[in-house]
Amino acid sequence: MHFHKVAIFGVGLIGASFALAMKKQGLCDEITGHGRTIANLRNAKEKGIIDSFDPDPLQACSGADLVVFATPVGSFTGLLKKIDGALKKNAVLTDVGSVKGRLAREMEAMTPEGIHYVGCHPIAGSDRSGIDSATEALFNGARCIITPTEKTDREALAKITTLWETFGSVITIMNPDEHDRIYAAISHLPHLLAYEMVNSVAEMDSSYLAFSGQGFKDMTRIAASAPELWRDICIFNRDFILESIELFRHNLDKASQYLRAADAEALEREFRKARTLREGIGQN
Amino acid sequence: MHFHKVAIFGVGLIGASFALAMKKQGLCDEITGHGRTIANLRNAKEKGIIDSFDPDPLQACSGADLVVFATPVGSFTGLLKKIDGALKKNAVLTDVGSVKGRLAREMEAMTPEGIHYVGCHPIAGSDRSGIDSATEALFNGARCIITPTEKTDREALAKITTLWETFGSVITIMNPDEHDRIYAAISHLPHLLAYEMVNSVAEMDSSYLAFSGQGFKDMTRIAASAPELWRDICIFNRDFILESIELFRHNLDKASQYLRAADAEALEREFRKARTLREGIGQN
Repeated sequence: MHFHKVAIFGVGLIGASFALAMKKQGLCDEITGHGRTIANLRNAKEKGIIDSFDPDPLQACSGADLVVFATPVGSFTGLLKKIDGALKKNAVLTDVGSVKGRLAREMEAMTPEGIHYVGCHPIAGSDRSGIDSATEALFNGARCIITPTEKTDREALAKITTLWETFGSVITIMNPDEHDRIYAAISHLPHLLAYEMVNSVAEMDSSYLAFSGQGFKDMTRIAASAPELWRDICIFNRDFILESIELFRHNLDKASQYLRAADAEALEREFRKARTLREGIGQN
Repeated sequence: MHFHKVAIFGVGLIGASFALAMKKQGLCDEITGHGRTIANLRNAKEKGIIDSFDPDPLQACSGADLVVFATPVGSFTGLLKKIDGALKKNAVLTDVGSVKGRLAREMEAMTPEGIHYVGCHPIAGSDRSGIDSATEALFNGARCIITPTEKTDREALAKITTLWETFGSVITIMNPDEHDRIYAAISHLPHLLAYEMVNSVAEMDSSYLAFSGQGFKDMTRIAASAPELWRDICIFNRDFILESIELFRHNLDKASQYLRAADAEALEREFRKARTLREGIGQN
């Protein structure tokens, strides 16, 4: 499995790490970058992360046999509309977006005949961003969810699966909607809660933030995540996130009732249940 | 500043680290431990953390010129009732509890004439517990809140302040109620949210927990904290915690409305505000 030209749209933490991993593993001949900020693309080229860049998306993907969308998910369909005429026959189009579901179905429906879309979500990055944090090892040992549908080209799927396996990722194949429900619960809602925890403390008294200990810092680390990424993720996955909020809110209300009633036993039961579950997923 | 005999009630992570720091700094001649579990006390003695232990609280504190309560806060007043007749004249009674406010006022009111209570809260420990995690350096560089009232004996306050300074702690003197309002917002509510985040995901589908990435793990690390400690903290500080929940819930509802309305701009504004605030408290 080898690609001639790879075009990466969005050379941030994930896009740049993808490029570095491709080079490290010798999976392609050349990598072209495209993005909004020329200074960043120039920087990426100087660091040897990409071989060239092109501010014109049509030029950037011209002749590419692998096109990777690593921009905020809100830009995917607009980008695809711009470039769909320029894509090489049999090219594989993939992405690294944190939402799949509706977005992946839209991408699939828009992908021109003879081009093969495969949706991916590498679980890596967390609160860091930008090419300075990029590393060829980012995906090594990390989970990567691949979300084919019944329409996905099997050959393209095999190529993309092999690519992530070569990066050292642990592959999980999953239905795009199931992916979105899981990540609403385990990642998207937690981000929203982290942002609102910080805002809530600041509204009470912004001087209180100076008293934060390790617990608060750990809990709100992801509130430093890129706002424009999480805005898009929230909008695309809002139905599942709202479902998760509903359930969380119900549990928070239950805990409030226990507090109001000074029901120590019920609180301890809740905490004990959570501790056992949390211990089940490991320390780090 | 030197103590002859120190009695530590509750030889867990904080109590044992306190004992180790006392020994390291040469601040006392001997340390006696008391607690519910004889095996733990025996273990602490074998490790040289304490010099002796006594299952009888009256014997344990007999002759002590410093008595430290490091048990779950719910046991403080009961313990004090048991031992108040046995305390040595001019002894200093202190604690390391995560709530002050009402509890500290109760302790103060119950403390017998000639004994001096000084409330303390070292900010250390997080999700760890037990003497195996104890270290003489636990408080070094960590914040310690001391919460004197107008009734606090100035000499006892000076002794306790010097003690924590000798441990290398950064001292903050604070009103007990202000302490509780701050820690409701910055620590107690976050613990409650972490517990309920884990429970909510598990209720949705417990298999989802296996998909947790670094963000979820960081956010829920404190859900592994000792349930009986947090039960007591929640009960004692419930008014301020309920106030914090109210504000947090309001912000969560606001975010839900933005989601329902697909108001990308408003969401990004919320996230951006939180990120700026979060960056202000540092990475770790």
